[in-house]
Amino acid sequence: MNNALINTLIQAFNELDIECFDDNEVRKNHGQDQSPYVHISLPDLVVFPVDSKQVSDIVRIANRFELPVIPFGEGTSVEGHVLAIKGGITINMSKMNQIIEVCPSSFTATVQPGVTRNQLDKALEELGVCFPIGPGVNASIGGMCATGASGTNAVKYGTMKENVLALEVVTSEGLIAKTGSKAKKTSAGYDLTHLIVGSEGTLGIITEITIKLYPIPEIISAAICSFQNIQAAILSVIKIIQESVPIAKVELIDGHTMSLVNKYSNLSLSECPKLLMEFHGSQSYIEEQVDKVSTIVSEYGGSEFTWATDANERNKLWQARHNAYYAAIASKKNARSVSTDTCVPIDRLAECLLASIEEVNSSGIPYFLVGHVGDGNFHFGYLIDPENEEEKLIAEELNNNLVMRAIDFEGTCTGEHGVGMHKINFLNKELGDVSVDLMKKIKLALDPKNILNPGKVIHV
Amino acid sequence: MNNALINTLIQAFNELDIECFDDNEVRKNHGQDQSPYVHISLPDLVVFPVDSKQVSDIVRIANRFELPVIPFGEGTSVEGHVLAIKGGITINMSKMNQIIEVCPSSFTATVQPGVTRNQLDKALEELGVCFPIGPGVNASIGGMCATGASGTNAVKYGTMKENVLALEVVTSEGLIAKTGSKAKKTSAGYDLTHLIVGSEGTLGIITEITIKLYPIPEIISAAICSFQNIQAAILSVIKIIQESVPIAKVELIDGHTMSLVNKYSNLSLSECPKLLMEFHGSQSYIEEQVDKVSTIVSEYGGSEFTWATDANERNKLWQARHNAYYAAIASKKNARSVSTDTCVPIDRLAECLLASIEEVNSSGIPYFLVGHVGDGNFHFGYLIDPENEEEKLIAEELNNNLVMRAIDFEGTCTGEHGVGMHKINFLNKELGDVSVDLMKKIKLALDPKNILNPGKVIHV
Repeated sequence: MNNALINTLIQAFNELDIECFDDNEVRKNHGQDQSPYVHISLPDLVVFPVDSKQVSDIVRIANRFELPVIPFGEGTSVEGHVLAIKGGITINMSKMNQIIEVCPSSFTATVQPGVTRNQLDKALEELGVCFPIGPGVNASIGGMCATGASGTNAVKYGTMKENVLALEVVTSEGLIAKTGSKAKKTSAGYDLTHLIVGSEGTLGIITEITIKLYPIPEIISAAICSFQNIQAAILSVIKIIQESVPIAKVELIDGHTMSLVNKYSNLSLSECPKLLMEFHGSQSYIEEQVDKVSTIVSEYGGSEFTWATDANERNKLWQARHNAYYAAIASKKNARSVSTDTCVPIDRLAECLLASIEEVNSSGIPYFLVGHVGDGNFHFGYLIDPENEEEKLIAEELNNNLVMRAIDFEGTCTGEHGVGMHKINFLNKELGDVSVDLMKKIKLALDPKNILNPGKVIHV
Repeated sequence: MNNALINTLIQAFNELDIECFDDNEVRKNHGQDQSPYVHISLPDLVVFPVDSKQVSDIVRIANRFELPVIPFGEGTSVEGHVLAIKGGITINMSKMNQIIEVCPSSFTATVQPGVTRNQLDKALEELGVCFPIGPGVNASIGGMCATGASGTNAVKYGTMKENVLALEVVTSEGLIAKTGSKAKKTSAGYDLTHLIVGSEGTLGIITEITIKLYPIPEIISAAICSFQNIQAAILSVIKIIQESVPIAKVELIDGHTMSLVNKYSNLSLSECPKLLMEFHGSQSYIEEQVDKVSTIVSEYGGSEFTWATDANERNKLWQARHNAYYAAIASKKNARSVSTDTCVPIDRLAECLLASIEEVNSSGIPYFLVGHVGDGNFHFGYLIDPENEEEKLIAEELNNNLVMRAIDFEGTCTGEHGVGMHKINFLNKELGDVSVDLMKKIKLALDPKNILNPGKVIHV
């Protein structure tokens, strides 16, 4: 973008009272996320709209000049979703952080996209309701919506896909569209809500989100169970799911990752493979679940459970789990993580995961391993120095092999992180050229100038 | 379609071994459904493909000649979805009725679109799993997928949207696309699966469906509870849902409809408003639910429960409920039903439903009333003689008023029946012109010649 154009845009945004920055520091802050991409071109401008009307104005102006617009939440993407790889205008959503409505009597809430998980949790708690969809980080609800995020609670509550009822979206022409309704179900025309959820800002800019809420469970009990080897932990999970225990969370963490977490979070948990579980419900309902799970894990030599029923203890446990990423990053100098996100049918989980563990062990690349294994979803983080071409190559090859394995097992390259820049080429392998071609047609129909977060999800 | 073209097509289909009929009887059989539309033009040809390749060939030929193609399942649509309003080729899916795979260990099954609910239920039962999504009728799974159907179990298990994992779809060009995977969750590109579910054959022809399965509940208990007035029944349901009782079904049936059902099914149930409920789970889990529900209904003067825990008794009860439509149709000479399908947030249900009951009572039109009230979804069937213009006008006005009321309450014109021919104009009111315009863009991008079930969902 040349200086004259930048000045024209700044003037236009100023006239519309839209906060706008072109200085290097702000641009650099928006040129990074938690992906391994560290040398990416920066946005030319960063704007901070306060409402849907301003987003609409920004996109209308960008459309006129055919400039990329990139929505930016909390910058916690691991696949480069929010990087301005073709320059343009990054739309930081942090000032659109109003919780517009919470309606406990219909179990719905409507929020602006910049509202963060922690902010929402706090507001809901007082009202006796919760929004249980949560990746480890304090992401924005808009970002979670854009990537189709899920997290540890998906076993019981599903992902963003199952929990977004309605959206307000700014189209590539800068018009404001409504999708869905507050009703629990609808068959009113094409499901634009689900088309936008997971479209990573490439089909429209999300400016309002109506989500489903849940009652805060009567009792929440968290337990840890240790295993002598990882196979026993995985086989236990498969059986828990196959026996349809209505467990709320069941997370795998391997022994090596436990040692990283111990060091980072100053804990002293035994450094062997573990399942971290959570049970929601009434006392008797939880007891019933725990009985079944105890029987299963003991068949595989699992330890007695260590319990955390008090909220503080429980938070400490889950914080340790969610810190695995940061613990791993901190364990190696200049490290970035190449994160995998495959998800397979539950009956193929052991085969897929064990082969992948063997492969990464023989590669010599340091890694961490955590998994939403109850969903058949798990994450390796291959720890690389992004300046080291050899490490990058090995990590990408490992990821490639893992994705091919998951696809062979009728699974997917991404369970919850999304495609971003990193998985575009896997889509053809997973879904075939005809399906990817349908996606391209939809992209070009809704964004003919390719201004909405270009270079993400698909190549057009 | 002129005779020369019909003969050309017949010859082409014969050469491809595709069964094909142009006689009046077969055409007439495919020119009706359970909607009030009785004078609709017939398809010119009806074909009976046996596999996806044949569907692909049919669509490719239709595309070349720019002819409408209309997929046809069991013909149980109530909104005119499967009517060949512009002539063309109806694709009867009844010979594509293979259950391709049932995988209880991953809780998935893959079926062809012509498989019916009853057929699937029977096949799954032996394997200890079930597919709980069921409208009252014996619809085809393809049809249920095309309309985004749900039914009585949606309170606990969701709708087709939440229960379809993957699809095979023939595009308007006759190409075969795959969407989704067998993994429980995926963020791999645009959610084509959800775009096709509920698109009523207008974006692609569904040729294979991968669905989620569930374990057969340990115990299933059905109960009936009677109320002195309908308001008490409705308020009870709202409280049951707001207190988050994990009930599997909770259906409303009004006193007048009970009298129709008694007559039709030769029963002698009391003719007052009733809730029909079903509880799934272990003995103790069900007891816990029943305790809560009993307390709630007694607050509103509900009767003691009448129980049906035995499978035969239970089936009889639900069959009576599902026969409400047929009982009503049989109650008036030459009757067809104009069916409503609004769905509102649970906290607006009483207001919406009571106002609508008052309105229909003062209209003088006979009707039946049943409702998946746990989801905020209910159906009036206004019984009209389709030859009587005045009755048609009154019924349409009632439906129009009801839809406007539901939209005012942030609900939808259709919870599960779909748009078909009947609700096209409501979409602009419910979602706004910008959203409907996005739908049109998608339709034209995927079906530029408008050959896929033209005249349904949206006008292009």
